[in-house]
Amino acid sequence: MKCYFDHVATNPLHPDVLEAMMPYFKEEYGNPLSLYELGGKARDAVEKAREATAKLIKAKPSTIVFTSSGAESNNFALRGLALARQANGKHIMVSKVEHHSILNSARFLEKSGFVVTYLPVDKYGIVGPEVVKSSITKETTVISIIHASSEIGTIEPLKEIVTIAKEHNILFHTDAVATTGNIPIDVNELNIDALSMSAHQFYGPKGAGALYIREGVRIVPLIYGGIQENGRRAGTENVPAIVGMGKAAEIAIRDMEKRMNHTQRLRDKVIDAFTKIPHIYLTGHPEKRLHNHASFVVEFIEGEAMLLLLAMKGIYTASGSACSSKALKSSPILLSIGTPTALAQGSIVFSLGEGNSDEEIDYLLEEFPKVVVKLREMSPFAKGWEK
Amino acid sequence: MKCYFDHVATNPLHPDVLEAMMPYFKEEYGNPLSLYELGGKARDAVEKAREATAKLIKAKPSTIVFTSSGAESNNFALRGLALARQANGKHIMVSKVEHHSILNSARFLEKSGFVVTYLPVDKYGIVGPEVVKSSITKETTVISIIHASSEIGTIEPLKEIVTIAKEHNILFHTDAVATTGNIPIDVNELNIDALSMSAHQFYGPKGAGALYIREGVRIVPLIYGGIQENGRRAGTENVPAIVGMGKAAEIAIRDMEKRMNHTQRLRDKVIDAFTKIPHIYLTGHPEKRLHNHASFVVEFIEGEAMLLLLAMKGIYTASGSACSSKALKSSPILLSIGTPTALAQGSIVFSLGEGNSDEEIDYLLEEFPKVVVKLREMSPFAKGWEK
Repeated sequence: MKCYFDHVATNPLHPDVLEAMMPYFKEEYGNPLSLYELGGKARDAVEKAREATAKLIKAKPSTIVFTSSGAESNNFALRGLALARQANGKHIMVSKVEHHSILNSARFLEKSGFVVTYLPVDKYGIVGPEVVKSSITKETTVISIIHASSEIGTIEPLKEIVTIAKEHNILFHTDAVATTGNIPIDVNELNIDALSMSAHQFYGPKGAGALYIREGVRIVPLIYGGIQENGRRAGTENVPAIVGMGKAAEIAIRDMEKRMNHTQRLRDKVIDAFTKIPHIYLTGHPEKRLHNHASFVVEFIEGEAMLLLLAMKGIYTASGSACSSKALKSSPILLSIGTPTALAQGSIVFSLGEGNSDEEIDYLLEEFPKVVVKLREMSPFAKGWEK
Repeated sequence: MKCYFDHVATNPLHPDVLEAMMPYFKEEYGNPLSLYELGGKARDAVEKAREATAKLIKAKPSTIVFTSSGAESNNFALRGLALARQANGKHIMVSKVEHHSILNSARFLEKSGFVVTYLPVDKYGIVGPEVVKSSITKETTVISIIHASSEIGTIEPLKEIVTIAKEHNILFHTDAVATTGNIPIDVNELNIDALSMSAHQFYGPKGAGALYIREGVRIVPLIYGGIQENGRRAGTENVPAIVGMGKAAEIAIRDMEKRMNHTQRLRDKVIDAFTKIPHIYLTGHPEKRLHNHASFVVEFIEGEAMLLLLAMKGIYTASGSACSSKALKSSPILLSIGTPTALAQGSIVFSLGEGNSDEEIDYLLEEFPKVVVKLREMSPFAKGWEK
């Protein structure tokens, strides 16, 4: 059996999405900027996708800028907003549980003279409103907090923090790569200024992302060039991928509730079973977490060893974030929630999708405990832990 | 009849390229960073594409960084090299016939305290080595000159300028978006440090570009995040598009000579015929130009009107660069080669591809002169020009 439990790394493409993309790989190959009919058809397709993508987060189409990935959207947002506002101040805030694309963009801004506060989190990975409030200075222009961490699954209670930001006239961005298309989002209800998303996180294609930017909010481009995306993001539009993103958004709106119910039920089976194994701990918040996400630290053994033994049984999963899977350092996110360094080595993340079945989960529940036992038998750290 | 003569805007995808991409839209959907087999297959596919792309410009695979477009590659190159070298100086040089992605990146650097020299060109659009030499200061760190302009077709004689750059320890980048995959390129023979390319310019997919960076040359990333592309470009790899770029590179190596001969023969028919029409002038260099490129300015009438009348006859072509087709300003490139403002309004560019036939060209040769006559009859500027 092959079981794919790594939907935070990437999702399979929905077959209807591929079908929607196909004409744009074939006869409809025009450049959306061209004035003739072939260009016009490509342009219309991009605008239709923009409408669908906007609808997914209850935004207006004109607020959507297509990019090539969630990482690009995050770089664009954090740096673009900070630069656009730099006359007002050079202090920004991000949380300690951000994705590398935010953390490393913040470090780049530090080199350009910005001051960055890395907001601490509690044991569940939640950023407290008090700490945000007390960290604000007269120079603060932008706060960026992830909507949900793909590593520990915790969904941040953004609304209270956004309220604080607004009271101080600070722009608020969220990295919603793990949530957009997976849980309901309303940018107006959240009252945020910018939001990053990625199509392949909701059964859309790789190579398509977007940034929502509230009307009237100024942003400095990341990629300069022609007049595409109203001058906010240059480069010939990746028409097939954008069309795919739009189609994936449509399907997500239609199927979201069903997908959430299905994966949450499977996830709960995983959490219930694995937290009964001695010395295994759930990471992230027990309730305020992604419906398809079960993450653990397993004492005395290493994440990579678990991955490899599971992969040999056809079970595909991850340890920490996909973007650092080859880096093999202790996860900064696990350390930020107070996980001891040794324990952080035993990280494992199961992220489920609409294609996963009860059968697959039963297989996992059978095989995973055996892997843990086997690795603990080999581990010098596990000796005598039963006491 | 439908005739696509706008290959500088974008190319149709080669059917074999699409076929190569398909498995990565279906069963091979893994994230290249994942440790299990599905990730490994995606990783292998990306590395195979890197080898093919490198081979196209006679480079080593490790020198290729995949991006999402030529525009991204240009932003990455100019800003990344300038920032990496800023301790040595803050003066860079670009030509006046660069693409907007270079010109606007240069303007962004000016706002960050860099000094930019915009190198003038002669009436063919060629940058003279003497003017490069005399513009170098102790602070000069980067020179970027386009390999060939998609607007006037002129191929720059880079080698002499690169020699001057090297004598002064200055990094040299070229925007080779219009040339890579279309004419032979050897980065070692040219002795350049960086080169931008775009897959959809040689029958590959939209959404895939690359930057060649010579071994040992430092560059600051444009998109920060995970460890993809050796930490030089973050974001989940667009595996299908990258695979498509590799396949398009393979085909380009195989078919380049045949494609060049075919389109050059057709192009010469166009140039011979249209330069015989009174008050029509070839733009760019008559010999040192892209083999598939015929560009003109037509006196007394406007480019957009020609495009629209031609489009009504099923002939798809462009006026100026695709990235500014909606901007409708006089082309800065035509002005830089000394074209009077009024004449620059009458710009039209025919760019040919392997799919174009003699029949199509004959149809164009028949229809275009009629369009010119018709528009001149309507033009107040054309009154009495026959005198």
